[in-house]
Amino acid sequence: MKTPYTVAMIKPAIVSAPRLYEQTADKVGVLIERGTLRPGERVPSVRRLSRQHGISVSTVLQAYMLLENRGLIEARPQSGYYVRPRLQALPPEPAMTEPPSGASRVSVDDLVARVMKAMRDPDIVPLGAGGPDPALFPNEKLHRVLAMVARRAGASANTYDVPPGSIELRRQIARRSLDWGCSLSSEEFVTTNGCMEALNVCLRAVAKPGDTIAVESPAFFGMLQAVESLGMKTLEISSYPRDGMCLDALDHATRRHKIAAVVVNLNFQNPLGSCMPDEKKKALVELLARKEIPLIEDDLFGDLYFGQQRPKTARAFDKKGLVLLCGSVSKTLAPGFRVGWTAPGRFQTQVERLKHATSCASPVLTQLAIAEFLKNGGYEHYVRRIRRAYAQQVQTIGEAIGRYFPAGTKVTRPQGGFLLWVEFPKWVNALELHRQALAQNISICPGPMFSPKQSYKNFIRINCGHPWSERIEKALVTIGRLAEKQR
Amino acid sequence: MKTPYTVAMIKPAIVSAPRLYEQTADKVGVLIERGTLRPGERVPSVRRLSRQHGISVSTVLQAYMLLENRGLIEARPQSGYYVRPRLQALPPEPAMTEPPSGASRVSVDDLVARVMKAMRDPDIVPLGAGGPDPALFPNEKLHRVLAMVARRAGASANTYDVPPGSIELRRQIARRSLDWGCSLSSEEFVTTNGCMEALNVCLRAVAKPGDTIAVESPAFFGMLQAVESLGMKTLEISSYPRDGMCLDALDHATRRHKIAAVVVNLNFQNPLGSCMPDEKKKALVELLARKEIPLIEDDLFGDLYFGQQRPKTARAFDKKGLVLLCGSVSKTLAPGFRVGWTAPGRFQTQVERLKHATSCASPVLTQLAIAEFLKNGGYEHYVRRIRRAYAQQVQTIGEAIGRYFPAGTKVTRPQGGFLLWVEFPKWVNALELHRQALAQNISICPGPMFSPKQSYKNFIRINCGHPWSERIEKALVTIGRLAEKQR
Repeated sequence: MKTPYTVAMIKPAIVSAPRLYEQTADKVGVLIERGTLRPGERVPSVRRLSRQHGISVSTVLQAYMLLENRGLIEARPQSGYYVRPRLQALPPEPAMTEPPSGASRVSVDDLVARVMKAMRDPDIVPLGAGGPDPALFPNEKLHRVLAMVARRAGASANTYDVPPGSIELRRQIARRSLDWGCSLSSEEFVTTNGCMEALNVCLRAVAKPGDTIAVESPAFFGMLQAVESLGMKTLEISSYPRDGMCLDALDHATRRHKIAAVVVNLNFQNPLGSCMPDEKKKALVELLARKEIPLIEDDLFGDLYFGQQRPKTARAFDKKGLVLLCGSVSKTLAPGFRVGWTAPGRFQTQVERLKHATSCASPVLTQLAIAEFLKNGGYEHYVRRIRRAYAQQVQTIGEAIGRYFPAGTKVTRPQGGFLLWVEFPKWVNALELHRQALAQNISICPGPMFSPKQSYKNFIRINCGHPWSERIEKALVTIGRLAEKQR
Repeated sequence: MKTPYTVAMIKPAIVSAPRLYEQTADKVGVLIERGTLRPGERVPSVRRLSRQHGISVSTVLQAYMLLENRGLIEARPQSGYYVRPRLQALPPEPAMTEPPSGASRVSVDDLVARVMKAMRDPDIVPLGAGGPDPALFPNEKLHRVLAMVARRAGASANTYDVPPGSIELRRQIARRSLDWGCSLSSEEFVTTNGCMEALNVCLRAVAKPGDTIAVESPAFFGMLQAVESLGMKTLEISSYPRDGMCLDALDHATRRHKIAAVVVNLNFQNPLGSCMPDEKKKALVELLARKEIPLIEDDLFGDLYFGQQRPKTARAFDKKGLVLLCGSVSKTLAPGFRVGWTAPGRFQTQVERLKHATSCASPVLTQLAIAEFLKNGGYEHYVRRIRRAYAQQVQTIGEAIGRYFPAGTKVTRPQGGFLLWVEFPKWVNALELHRQALAQNISICPGPMFSPKQSYKNFIRINCGHPWSERIEKALVTIGRLAEKQR
C-alpha cells in the first residue's frame, strides 16, 4: 500500500539518521499495527518514552517524526502525537479518473435540486448535501459576537457596504493569508456572499458565455451549475484521488482546446478529498502562467486538514496575478452567515464591478461578526476541534463502508474535509441507488452530479459532516443492501 | 399647471357634488395659495372647521377630498390632512424622454465606481448614490430583533437556507403582498441578497447573453450594469416624468425588435420618480401578455408613496405568470441587511436554480430578523415616519434647486421615493459638473449614468435621502454656481 502523502514527507532531514531512533520507531509501530495503540489514541509522550526506554528526548522525537513520515501517527499542536486512522481497515482506493474527452454543456440541475430539497428535511439521513452538523459550530458564541458588533456599529451598520466590502473583515482575512503561504493585503480582497458568489464573479471576470472552463473530474456540482448557468462549457480533466488534477492531462488539454480558465479545489477536493502537494501546485501555477490562463482556486476546505500543517494555496506561487483565490467560513464556522471572499489578483477591478452588479453589497453585520470572531473569538481553537471531529467521522464512515458495502467497493483517503468518494463495482447504478435510498429517507449524492457528462455512474459521495450515530450506521447498512440487490 | 396625479383622481364619486362643500374647499384653498397655510402644515381638523363654519362634518370631509383631489392637501392616517408640497415653488418639470433609437451595449461602469466610492467617504456631501441617511432607520430595534431571533434559532440558524429561502420571511412578504394589490402565497417567493440579486436572477431566468432588454429611459444604473455584465443589450423606451414608460413607444419597439424582457420601476422610478397609474400598469401587463414578453418589475420604492395609498404593482394584473416581481427592505428599513425577494411567476424553478448557482443561499439570521420585524416590529409605523421625512426632503431640495440652480432648470415631481431628476439648460455638461462638484466634496449622479447611450448630458440625479441641513444647502449653492460658470 502506498504511503499517504503528508507534508512531513518533503522534509529531507530524516533520511540519514542513526539506528537507535529507527529501532524505537519500529517498536511503537508494532504496537500500532497490532492494534494495541488504536486510531485516535495518544501515543506515549516524548518524555515518558524517553524515561521508560532510557533514551534521549531527541531520539524519541526523531522516532516519532519517522512514524509520522510513515503515516502511522500525527502531531497535534499542544497536545502530542496520536495514532492516525488505520488505512488497512478501509476498502482500497479508486484509481485516477478518466473522463470522456471533449467540452460539454452541464446538466445536473434536477439532481442538485433533489439533494438540496432533502437537506431541508430533518427526517432524512444527511449523507447527501455537503452540510456539516450545525451543532459542531460555536453558535452561541457567534450569536453573542453578532449582537456585540451590532451594538458597537449602531446606525453605521445600516448602509450599503459596497465592494470591496468590509475593511474589518478584509483585514482579518489578509492576516490569515499568511497561513495559506501568501501575504496578501486587505486591498487585495473583495468580500462576497459566500464562496459560491466569489466563484461566480471570478468566472465572469475571466470568461464569457461560450468559453471553455477546465475542471477536475469529478468536480463540485455547485460549480458545474454556475458554469452552466453562465453559458460556459466545461472540460473535465483526469484527476488523482490523492494528488488532484493530472497536470499532463491539463497540459495536453490546453494544446487541444482554447481554455479560458481552470477552476480547482486543490485542498481536499469536493468530492475526491484529494490534496495537491505544494510542489505540484507550484507546477500547476507555472504551467498556466506560461499560457496566460487564469486559475480560479476554491480553497473552501483548506483549513480542514487532518495532518500537521495547513496545505498552501496555489496563490502562494502566483507571480503574475493570474490566480483568483476564493474562500469562506462556511465549512469551518458559519455556513448560515454566507461570508466569503476572493483575492482576484489582476482581475480586482472587474470582480469589484461584477460583485456590485450582482448583489450591490454584502450584509454589514455578518461580515463584522466574522471579522470579530477571526480577531478575538478563538477561531483556531474551534477549527482544531472541528478538524478532529471531521477526521474521526471520515474514518469511522470509511470503515463502515468497508463492512457494509458490496465486496469490490473502493473509497478515497481524504486528508482533510468531510467528504468520501465511493466507487461501487460496475454493476451498481448510483442514480438508481440514490432514488432507492431517498425512498428510505436517506440522502446521498450520486456520482453523475459531479460530471457534466454524467459519468461516475457507479460512484456516490458521502457527507461525513455529521457525528457518527446509530442512525447513520443503519443508513449505511441500508445503502449497502440496496447496492447488493442491484447485482 | 397640470394637477399632479393622485390615487384620489380615479375615484369618480366627487364629480356631481353640491355647492356648499365646493365653497368650503375654495376658502381653504385660498389660505393655501396665499401661503397662510404652508406646505407640511396641518389644515384645521374636520370637527373644528365644522364647528367654526357651522357646516356638517360630512361637508367638510367632502371639501377636503376635493382639495386632495386638486393636489393641495393630503391625508395622513390617524393624523389628519396636511398641505402638500407647493408645486408653484418648484421649477418646471422635464418633458417626456426621447432616447436615441436602437439597442446598445451598456458602459456606465466608471461613473458608477466613482459614485459608489464617494458613498464610502463621510467627508463627501451625499447627493449622489441612492442611500438614505442610516439614522432614519430603526437601527437599535433592528439589532435587538436580530439578537432575539439568533437566540431563538440557536444552532438551526447555522445551515444552508437553500432556495426558496426562509419560510418565515416568505410568509411575511406574502402577507404584505395584499398591499400591492396581489395575494401571493409564501410558495411563490424566492428570497435573495437584496433586490439587485433578485433582478439578476430574474434577468438570467428570462433572457440569455445577446438578448435585448427594454428599459425605461432614463433607468437605474445598477440595473444597466447587471444587463451589461450578463452580455445582454438594452433598448431605451421613452418615458414620462409622471406616468413612466410610454406604452406606445414600447408597443412600437416590440414590433421593430425582438425583446426578451422588459425591466421597469413602475412605482417611483429611479431616477424619474414617476409612478405609473394603476390603469396604465394593467395596460402594460396586457400589452406584454399578448406578446408573451416577461416583465421584470422592480418594486423597491413601492412602499414610499407620499399620497394616501400605496400604488399597486403590475403583478396585481398578471394572469399569465409573466410578471417577475422584485423587492426588498433596503429603502424602507435596512439597506445593510441585504434582504430582498422575488415572486417570479412561471419562472419559479429557473429562479430557484439560478439563486442556488449564484450564491447558494441567503444568510439565515438577517432573513429571520426582517421576518420578525415585519411581523411584530411596527414596520408600518416606521415606514410612515420615513415617508414623511422623504416627502419633506424631496420638497425642500426641489425648492432649493429653484432658488440656486441656473434659470431654465427643470425638476421632476416625484410622488414617492427620495430622488430628484434635474434637467439643466442645454449648455450644462453634467459629467463635467459631476467632476467639479466631486473636487469640492459633493457627490451627484450625472445623467449619462442612467443611459446605456450616455444620453442625458445636461441632467443630474439628486439623492434626497438625507435630512435637510446647512451642509446640503451649501452644496446645492455650489452646484448651482458650478453650473452657472459653464454658461
